[in-house]
Amino acid sequence: MIVREKENWFKMLFVWKGSVLPAILPRLGLLLLISVAVVFVQGRLFEYKIPLNPAAFTLLGVALAIFLGFRNNASYERFWEGRKLWGALLIDTRSLTRQALTMTGLSADSPEVLSFVRLLIAFTYALKHQLRKTDPTEDFQRLLPQEVVQKLAKARFKPILLLKELGMWVQAGKEAGRIDSITQAAIDHNLNQLSNIVGGCERIASTPIPYTYSVLLHRTVYLYCFLLPFGLVDSIGWMTPLMVVFVGYTFMALESIVTEIEEPFGTEPNDLALNTISQTIEASLLEMAGQEVPKALKPKRKFILD
Amino acid sequence: MIVREKENWFKMLFVWKGSVLPAILPRLGLLLLISVAVVFVQGRLFEYKIPLNPAAFTLLGVALAIFLGFRNNASYERFWEGRKLWGALLIDTRSLTRQALTMTGLSADSPEVLSFVRLLIAFTYALKHQLRKTDPTEDFQRLLPQEVVQKLAKARFKPILLLKELGMWVQAGKEAGRIDSITQAAIDHNLNQLSNIVGGCERIASTPIPYTYSVLLHRTVYLYCFLLPFGLVDSIGWMTPLMVVFVGYTFMALESIVTEIEEPFGTEPNDLALNTISQTIEASLLEMAGQEVPKALKPKRKFILD
Amino acid sequence: MIVREKENWFKMLFVWKGSVLPAILPRLGLLLLISVAVVFVQGRLFEYKIPLNPAAFTLLGVALAIFLGFRNNASYERFWEGRKLWGALLIDTRSLTRQALTMTGLSADSPEVLSFVRLLIAFTYALKHQLRKTDPTEDFQRLLPQEVVQKLAKARFKPILLLKELGMWVQAGKEAGRIDSITQAAIDHNLNQLSNIVGGCERIASTPIPYTYSVLLHRTVYLYCFLLPFGLVDSIGWMTPLMVVFVGYTFMALESIVTEIEEPFGTEPNDLALNTISQTIEASLLEMAGQEVPKALKPKRKFILD
Amino acid sequence: MIVREKENWFKMLFVWKGSVLPAILPRLGLLLLISVAVVFVQGRLFEYKIPLNPAAFTLLGVALAIFLGFRNNASYERFWEGRKLWGALLIDTRSLTRQALTMTGLSADSPEVLSFVRLLIAFTYALKHQLRKTDPTEDFQRLLPQEVVQKLAKARFKPILLLKELGMWVQAGKEAGRIDSITQAAIDHNLNQLSNIVGGCERIASTPIPYTYSVLLHRTVYLYCFLLPFGLVDSIGWMTPLMVVFVGYTFMALESIVTEIEEPFGTEPNDLALNTISQTIEASLLEMAGQEVPKALKPKRKFILD
Amino acid sequence: MIVREKENWFKMLFVWKGSVLPAILPRLGLLLLISVAVVFVQGRLFEYKIPLNPAAFTLLGVALAIFLGFRNNASYERFWEGRKLWGALLIDTRSLTRQALTMTGLSADSPEVLSFVRLLIAFTYALKHQLRKTDPTEDFQRLLPQEVVQKLAKARFKPILLLKELGMWVQAGKEAGRIDSITQAAIDHNLNQLSNIVGGCERIASTPIPYTYSVLLHRTVYLYCFLLPFGLVDSIGWMTPLMVVFVGYTFMALESIVTEIEEPFGTEPNDLALNTISQTIEASLLEMAGQEVPKALKPKRKFILD
Repeated sequence: MIVREKENWFKMLFVWKGSVLPAILPRLGLLLLISVAVVFVQGRLFEYKIPLNPAAFTLLGVALAIFLGFRNNASYERFWEGRKLWGALLIDTRSLTRQALTMTGLSADSPEVLSFVRLLIAFTYALKHQLRKTDPTEDFQRLLPQEVVQKLAKARFKPILLLKELGMWVQAGKEAGRIDSITQAAIDHNLNQLSNIVGGCERIASTPIPYTYSVLLHRTVYLYCFLLPFGLVDSIGWMTPLMVVFVGYTFMALESIVTEIEEPFGTEPNDLALNTISQTIEASLLEMAGQEVPKALKPKRKFILD
Repeated sequence: MIVREKENWFKMLFVWKGSVLPAILPRLGLLLLISVAVVFVQGRLFEYKIPLNPAAFTLLGVALAIFLGFRNNASYERFWEGRKLWGALLIDTRSLTRQALTMTGLSADSPEVLSFVRLLIAFTYALKHQLRKTDPTEDFQRLLPQEVVQKLAKARFKPILLLKELGMWVQAGKEAGRIDSITQAAIDHNLNQLSNIVGGCERIASTPIPYTYSVLLHRTVYLYCFLLPFGLVDSIGWMTPLMVVFVGYTFMALESIVTEIEEPFGTEPNDLALNTISQTIEASLLEMAGQEVPKALKPKRKFILD
Repeated sequence: MIVREKENWFKMLFVWKGSVLPAILPRLGLLLLISVAVVFVQGRLFEYKIPLNPAAFTLLGVALAIFLGFRNNASYERFWEGRKLWGALLIDTRSLTRQALTMTGLSADSPEVLSFVRLLIAFTYALKHQLRKTDPTEDFQRLLPQEVVQKLAKARFKPILLLKELGMWVQAGKEAGRIDSITQAAIDHNLNQLSNIVGGCERIASTPIPYTYSVLLHRTVYLYCFLLPFGLVDSIGWMTPLMVVFVGYTFMALESIVTEIEEPFGTEPNDLALNTISQTIEASLLEMAGQEVPKALKPKRKFILD
Repeated sequence: MIVREKENWFKMLFVWKGSVLPAILPRLGLLLLISVAVVFVQGRLFEYKIPLNPAAFTLLGVALAIFLGFRNNASYERFWEGRKLWGALLIDTRSLTRQALTMTGLSADSPEVLSFVRLLIAFTYALKHQLRKTDPTEDFQRLLPQEVVQKLAKARFKPILLLKELGMWVQAGKEAGRIDSITQAAIDHNLNQLSNIVGGCERIASTPIPYTYSVLLHRTVYLYCFLLPFGLVDSIGWMTPLMVVFVGYTFMALESIVTEIEEPFGTEPNDLALNTISQTIEASLLEMAGQEVPKALKPKRKFILD
Repeated sequence: MIVREKENWFKMLFVWKGSVLPAILPRLGLLLLISVAVVFVQGRLFEYKIPLNPAAFTLLGVALAIFLGFRNNASYERFWEGRKLWGALLIDTRSLTRQALTMTGLSADSPEVLSFVRLLIAFTYALKHQLRKTDPTEDFQRLLPQEVVQKLAKARFKPILLLKELGMWVQAGKEAGRIDSITQAAIDHNLNQLSNIVGGCERIASTPIPYTYSVLLHRTVYLYCFLLPFGLVDSIGWMTPLMVVFVGYTFMALESIVTEIEEPFGTEPNDLALNTISQTIEASLLEMAGQEVPKALKPKRKFILD
């Protein structure tokens, strides 16, 4: 996630970090070259004049608007749903911690409560590592007893097994007579929410927007851009390269952002800051349990939370 | 579902597998033929000049944008709601398994828990087979005791009868004194969710977008495309076939994708991978219950999960 | 609801049943006549040339797009919400039947369970008849004991009184000691859902999209269409009637479909198949209760479920 | 709320009641005058020709479409959310009545049940009067015991105090041993819903769409309309007044409707019929409690429910 | 939040307070200067004629419409979700107060109830101060016992620790035998809601719309506006400055409003009136508890609630 203060309107025109310009620069350069060439030959290709005009491109505008508008909205919804799920993770782990502290008859500093809180924190990191396909072992060893770490080592659905551990913690409390069926059901309700969060993240991660849409939009955008110089050269002459690159920039940049946020759990600049959220969850739960809170880490890259 | 890595922007222009181009190629060919003929006769039909121009088509753009935009959004919502329902299926069967493991007083390896888990897996396959109108017998025989298989054989609403079996399993636990009313109510809450999922899938499968919309959009798109050569030939001459086929491609391809994902439970390339999700559910539940997890099957067709 | 197989793209251009063409044919005929007359007099009215051109109509496109887009989306949402409510009716009556079968200590073939199931079926038909303003007596006599039929005869809110009967059935079970407070609360939760469904349907049925929108859209569409010939005749001459009727068809047809699905509980071709859904609910509940399932009725009109 | 039968398409063009035409007629008249003057002077202002053309207005179309589309959607959502909240009020008061009748051990004709039902009806009217800023005393005196009326007289949040009374009614039943904690929790769940409804209505009533949007849209619409004659007069001559008034009518009428339904709880023609809904709630609850149902009142103004 | 009566349509054209005009005036002035200069040199730059025309800008309209429409909708959704969360805060604190008054066996004027109500009010202010990054000490000292104030002083997540205090209040009631597990679970359900509200507000506050969108929209708007004079000068001559400033005003004003409401918890004129809502919550809870209600404060700035 890119975190920058809002700049003055004039400076913002020349921002480099946080823009997608670097990524699409080669393509825009190619487009510029072609446009200049088209102006140079005055729209002719091997002696044949290419008879295009802006009206033909206006007709294409309908399809382009639908494709870009749809893909943009669908991608942003995926991004925002991903963010909501991780917000819900913060909410539910806090609620579960509150329940463990005030409904189970355990005192705030008992080892049982702490081990419950650590299970919740491990659950958070487990989900992060699953979504980013990274290795959770280090975090597990820091947070969990050795036998649980080993159980998880070979598991395919690690957060789900941690959910089961959480359920077994509650059941142990019930067998010890500290928790009755009603309180168990209330805690179980929040465990169901955690299950919803895992399933929701897996859904977004495993099901992209149908691939055919990407192909269709991609082809339309690029064919449109590379034909455009022929359509403009007769009416705006040597301004053609400027306008073509401007139009091309808006379309290609949008396609580029959209492709980035469509998969919100990655590590590209505009993706969700899962690492930062995980650390916030850890800090908030430990604070509730009266433990020392680890300091927030500095972002590794300027302006960017990962 | 088509699963492909994102290609380089240039290669992606020439992707064949995962594009709808093959399906609409004959129609585009016909459109090309007509356009070439129109250029050849310079927009005349039996000596009569057809006096069309782009402005008239711009007016049609409003209606086209509304029809295509609406149909596209409504279809994608159906697709995505279908995906959400199957995501919820994964979530709720996991939650029920967790409840069976930690709230019923049964040990993880007791045969009762395993039979409950198998009922849940059978429920998943039953729903898949109902939505795809295929025969569930093989899966039932693999997962269920013989007398349940027979009961289901003649049933019209198979997943619903399996839900009743799940309810009876809980009731048996209550009669045996292992489950009290409160735990029963908590499990029953998740059974209600499964009922929601079945009903939601049946709703999407049984109620298409009103047929009249399809007819109206279809006619507008094709009439528009086949009149377009006459509107463009005077201003862009021999480029007419190229632009007409380009415009036609965008509209026809969109209509084609949309018709595919409107019924998301089928087996066309962009439909939901119900088979893969069912196998994931089976693997996840068995892992939770401490059973051997079956290996994920290889997709039969390249890039496509079914 | 119109149920047709997807046709070949070419045949679909000439579908008659399921299109709104028949309904708007007279208006299109009038529009054709006017257009032909305008071509004949070359855009003059009593010697005065009407100086219109396509640009003026392009400006109107903004308002038209907003009105049509809004009305279309709002109507489809009403249609789809109505469908969701009836889907929820199927879901909740099934859940209540499951609860009656597995949580009340009654055996599946006891007369109490059957009378509960019949109350649920009667509730379904009562809602259907209320929404369509038809007489429910026949269905009530088939399903309910005589004294309940009589109580309902004079009632204004029949489904609500049936909900009360369902609540009293549960209370009777509690008084008989078969149901405890917890199970009663779980069943009551689903009765609340039925209350939601009735209220949701009543909301859609009693509150149309504000009338002023309909008037505004209607006037804009028709004034636009009947002025259009004067705007096109100078530039496209004798093609004017074709293009005007084409544009008029798209706008009038959309307004016509939208008016139909805006009130989704009626009996027009694109309305919801409440009758079919009611029969599905009846069949599903009886199957769960181990009763004989009535055969699905054939649709009375070809392609149309009512 | 305007309730009219759908008219024949031709008659509907000339509907007066239910159109916003009367409200904006003066402004349209002014616009007509200006347009006629512009035609008369052939687009000159003090000897200077105003050199505008339709193309410049097309560029403004983008901003206009976004402003009008946004404001229209946001206002309709407020209207429809208001309607949903009042629909939920009908649903929840019915559910609470059902619970009072079937879960509290009281017989349907006991005075306690009746006083509970009257509290619910008074709650409904209290909310209506709060939203419309009218005096609820008359309705309170009709429905509530004298001491409650007095307590409410000076209260700022009247519906909330009635909610507290409802909660105290339940608590009294618990203290009398007729209601246990579980049933209390089930009723309390529905009281929470009533709290949601009050808060939701207050939110809509107290927070308009940000004022700046209204100013921006308003200025854009009127500046656009009053400049338009200069843009059209060169190309469509004496038809300018007709087209300008037509375009102006669509934009001004939309702005006018939207301002009306943005605050859905008022008493303008298109606002919600809170009075009618309140009477429906009263009738439905009394019917459930076996009381005499008051007759539905005739609307005071033709076609309009208030 | 700006609160103004709806003005007469004519006066509203010249509203100053509540418009964003002041903020963007310098940029519009610059745009005006450039436009006048372009008219003066007749579109030439150092002897070279800049050959632009409106058609090129029409092509850019597609991208502009998508960027502005998307950013506007996404920002308004954030604003409205923020408002919903604060509406839910009013709702849930009221529900919790009702539960404390009617389900805990405490009389309305007992010190325990009052201390619970004060915790809820302190929770509200704590959230407000966290979102606006202001110092809550003054409000805490007014509302909370000294030892709680000290505990909160160093905490990072203050509202969450207050939630824990609320949970401990309930637990104390349970240990005193006044509250059973069921009532505790019912209250805990509403505490979960408060946890949702905190998490929801934190999500909006910590995750802006991806920065790249802002840059892209910003550049497109300003480049478009500053090129526009060259595109219009040939066709509308000395009217260019007027139309360019008009177009520029609509785009820049929209971008400006949108940037303001995107972060709805700030103190800019169109932001949410968190202060006013907090005072309403305080007044409503105290009224329910039978305490003296503080008078509503006058807004400090005319028309503006903060």
